[in-house]
Amino acid sequence: MAALDQLVEALRRLPGVGPKSAQRMAYHLLQHDRAGAQQLIAGLTEALARVQTCTRCHGFSEAPVCAVCSDGTRDLGLLAVVESPADQAVLERSGSYRGYYFVLGGRVSPLDGRGPKDIGGEALIARALDGGVREVILATSFTAEGEATAYLLGEALKSRGLSVTRLARGVPVGSELEFVDLGTLAHALADRR
Amino acid sequence: MAALDQLVEALRRLPGVGPKSAQRMAYHLLQHDRAGAQQLIAGLTEALARVQTCTRCHGFSEAPVCAVCSDGTRDLGLLAVVESPADQAVLERSGSYRGYYFVLGGRVSPLDGRGPKDIGGEALIARALDGGVREVILATSFTAEGEATAYLLGEALKSRGLSVTRLARGVPVGSELEFVDLGTLAHALADRR
Repeated sequence: MAALDQLVEALRRLPGVGPKSAQRMAYHLLQHDRAGAQQLIAGLTEALARVQTCTRCHGFSEAPVCAVCSDGTRDLGLLAVVESPADQAVLERSGSYRGYYFVLGGRVSPLDGRGPKDIGGEALIARALDGGVREVILATSFTAEGEATAYLLGEALKSRGLSVTRLARGVPVGSELEFVDLGTLAHALADRR
Repeated sequence: MAALDQLVEALRRLPGVGPKSAQRMAYHLLQHDRAGAQQLIAGLTEALARVQTCTRCHGFSEAPVCAVCSDGTRDLGLLAVVESPADQAVLERSGSYRGYYFVLGGRVSPLDGRGPKDIGGEALIARALDGGVREVILATSFTAEGEATAYLLGEALKSRGLSVTRLARGVPVGSELEFVDLGTLAHALADRR
């Protein structure tokens, strides 16, 4: 059936979903949870229409400037640099950070020819020099590419007289920031160097 | 963000998707694969509109009568009884069956007070007596509820003079039919008793 097969194909594009899972999801929705399928259509449609990029931090936002960037009670002197909106969300949920964010467009990848410019490095430098920032916390992943990103951005920021720190090594080396438990992340924030 | 949270909630209704997976999926779609999100909206919308129930076998179909039931080259004497459209699909993919199907609305569940009538037992008997069926193959799962379903339907069918078989015990006991490998399923069809 064409419509069923197309639904299975679409579900396979979700991260972590293989052909068997996609098939199971499609049959489940059509047989047992058509209301859930409607809810998913509505959720996707709304999110696509409403979730845009914050003009200040480049994270997700439903307004031109996101709730964090609009929050005047935060520490203007702190700027955390993360790889993605998901990493920003997990750092925020750790409850240990009261500064502002800058969300990169991923990490540098020398093998793919993706350098600091391709992930928003220039916008980061402009933002970091935009008055009041006394410390830039590089919260990129502790993978090879995340470390390379932190190194390259760190050098560029330091050469402009900015103070640069990195999350403490409490974060297990080789892991993705998004999957770190919140306690470890809180320690890593406290011990930043 | 309300729209993002609602998308995460909707994704959590998918089978096998927990809070972390749902969040990962939502961020992935919004950040890296908005085209995939559009494809998923289209796939869900099309499937909900087009995939209905075949009036003859009660499986999934985009027409009033499905492709299998409309196929005149199959063996009219064989009728396989399955628990769900997913089980019908996996039996069909085994390539060992050339008869017709009857798709039940699940399995009996004495604990929940769900008996043969609640899963389409009467419609099955009417279909099995509808001329030409010489053997009803009970292809329900080899779980306690699947066995109870096969027993109750088997007795009812036999009392009306129909010949009833069960998939061979080659299918591992305690497993769901949907996840059985196709080779085992082919053996189970050949050795039905």
